[in-house]
This record gives sequence, C-alpha cells and structure tokens, in this order.
Amino acid sequence: MAEIPHRRGAPMPGAEVLAEPLRSRWSPSVFDPAHVVGREQVVALIRAAQWAPSCGNAQPWHLVVAERGDATHDLLVARLSRGNAGWVPRASLVLVVGAQVAPDDRGEGGTKPAHAEYDAGQAAAHVTLQARAMGLHAHQFAGFDRTGLAADLGAPPWVRLLAGIAVGVPGDLDDVPERDREREHRVRRRRPAEQWVHAGSWGTPWPGLEP
Amino acid sequence: MAEIPHRRGAPMPGAEVLAEPLRSRWSPSVFDPAHVVGREQVVALIRAAQWAPSCGNAQPWHLVVAERGDATHDLLVARLSRGNAGWVPRASLVLVVGAQVAPDDRGEGGTKPAHAEYDAGQAAAHVTLQARAMGLHAHQFAGFDRTGLAADLGAPPWVRLLAGIAVGVPGDLDDVPERDREREHRVRRRRPAEQWVHAGSWGTPWPGLEP
Repeated sequence: MAEIPHRRGAPMPGAEVLAEPLRSRWSPSVFDPAHVVGREQVVALIRAAQWAPSCGNAQPWHLVVAERGDATHDLLVARLSRGNAGWVPRASLVLVVGAQVAPDDRGEGGTKPAHAEYDAGQAAAHVTLQARAMGLHAHQFAGFDRTGLAADLGAPPWVRLLAGIAVGVPGDLDDVPERDREREHRVRRRRPAEQWVHAGSWGTPWPGLEP
Repeated sequence: MAEIPHRRGAPMPGAEVLAEPLRSRWSPSVFDPAHVVGREQVVALIRAAQWAPSCGNAQPWHLVVAERGDATHDLLVARLSRGNAGWVPRASLVLVVGAQVAPDDRGEGGTKPAHAEYDAGQAAAHVTLQARAMGLHAHQFAGFDRTGLAADLGAPPWVRLLAGIAVGVPGDLDDVPERDREREHRVRRRRPAEQWVHAGSWGTPWPGLEP
C-alpha cells in the first residue's frame, strides 16, 4: 500500500494512533498563491512558539514574519535555493526561525548551541501543529542562504537562522510545473522504529515494538 | 494576575488562542510514582516522533526507553543532576532523546548538527504533545551526565544525547519535599513577543503584535 503513488493524504503507516493535529500533519509543496493568512492567525502561530517548552526556560527562538508580497518576503525569496524558489513563494506566509546560540552584547541569553537549536526546533514544531489545528498546513525548509538573509535583515552574530516555515493552504496541482507537482506524489517514508528506539543498551530495540 | 502564586493550571497569558494539546501543555515536576504508562501508549509516543518532520527527511532522532524500575531507568537515574534526581525518578517513563550529528561508520546519515538538533527538538515536541493528547504530561530536562549515560548505553560517537522527556501523570503535592513542591508554584513566564518576532529588519517588531 505504501508503494502506491498517491496525491495527498498519503499513507502514514503507524500514525493511525496519533492524535490531531499530529495525525493529519503533512508538508504540502503546492500552496494556493491567492490564500492570505489572517493577522489573528499569525498571532496564534506566534503564541504557539511563545508557549513552547525550553531548557531552563531560555526561550532561545526568534521568528521573522514574511508575508507574501511584503518587503521581508522579497528578501527571503531572493535568498531561496533553486529547489525551493518554485514552491516557497506561493505560500501565504513564511516564518523564518532563528536561535540565539551565544550571549548577546549585554552578555544575556544564549544557552549551548545544541540546546538553542533543539528548542528552536520545538518552537517550530509547535507553530507547525498550531497551523494544522487552524486548518492550515506548514512545510519547513532549510534550503536558503541563511547567512545572506541574516545579513539582509541585520541579525546580530549571536543569532543563527535555521529554517523557514512556509504556511498556507494546499493549491491546485494542475497549476504548477511537473517538477513541483512531483513532490506531492512522493510516498511518505520513515525509518523503522527498531532502528532508533533503544532500551537496555544501544542497538537493542525496545521490546514493546515487537508485534 | 500573572503575579499570583499558583499551584497547577498556571496562567499562560496569550495562550487562550492555542489549540489542544498545545493549550494545556505544561511541565509538572511532581509525578505520581505509582502510575504506569501502558505499552500501547509508549508505542504512540514513538509514532509521534517517527512522523515528525525533518530536514531532507533525515529523521536524525534516537530514543532510549527507560521505564521506571527497569535497568535502563537505573542507568539514567544514576546520571541525573542533583536538581533532577528528586523529581525525574517519580515519572512513569523517561524517553532519552539523541540526535545523529555525524555520519555513522558506514558513512550514512548525519546532517549538520544544527539540523539534527533542531529536528530532534521537533520530534521531542511531537512526543510531548502526543503525551498531552493522551491525558499524560511530559517534562523535558537536560540536567544529566549525557556523555556518561551515552557511554553506559554504548551509544556510538555519531550520536549526541540531548535531553530526557519525563512522562506520567501529576502526583500528590503533599507527597514531596518543599524543594520539589516549590517548582509547581512557579509563575509561568515568557519573553514578550516584541523581543523576538521581527519583520522588515531585525529588532523591528512585527506590526501585527500591536494591540
């Protein structure tokens, strides 16, 4: 079944047990370029990041709001990798995620980079799931000139840009080139849990996974 | 209102707009030491991590399952920091989160550490929110000898342990020392969004935040 080419709503074996909004989360690559995310929805996405957990409550995350058509969005689009330049600009909104990886110029903030990036990932996951709960979809990407965009924005050296979260609603598959449409047909694959869930000693799968 | 000492269900200003399970997520420090998480619930937590998104679908996360009272749990408890040694062992279960930060001995896997840690954080957030959706609570922590535990488990050098996710149900506040009880009374604080949500240029708050 996982081998059957699909459009949307691809099989997610094992995900039947998940609660919403995790259950129906997926990353579209064909967004509706006419859809606009309301400001109150953007605020809710920001609140989702704000109330994410973090190591020592450091809250090391930053977001840059790029709404399709505004000046921030123009800066982002100019920095997209070739592979992302087709699909990302169609999304209603991009939230660029950064992490404070060192203390600022007053010596404040900045946990170890590993924690900052882990916690920025948590905040991004909260944004993504809040989007889904509001009827939106989100697709994260890292393929852009992150140091170039940081310079464009004037981001300080203690912040590292990590990813973008493209947010919107799915668009018409017939409205994009084959190259972009192809992404929506990909079979969704995940590593078997036996390869990455350990117990007792590394490489010994947790026995509860046995059928 | 945010200044009033509280027990549980602390005010989360701005979080009223969030969907469940984000809305009611919080990190208890007093767990019920008699509660047991069922195996099917552990499987659901693992599936939540499995279906998290990741950069290039690299899925760099690892989990170690430590169920209260088993040998893995004993290894973890012996490595807890002093501040975590009181409350963590009461939780029903700890999932230790690792990330593959370099290629393995076959040259496979291992995105850049920043992406691996960001994506491990996303997987941890999915686990935490799935726990909440199942009526459980989760409290993440980084205060343990992570290199020591990695050695105990025989983890390979291309994997970095990052955090633990303590999972269970809240316990009796009168059942723990004042030091642990105090944690449950803390006011929940978050940085004002104006400090970390930018648009146009760094340090310019996104205008949609204005009241």
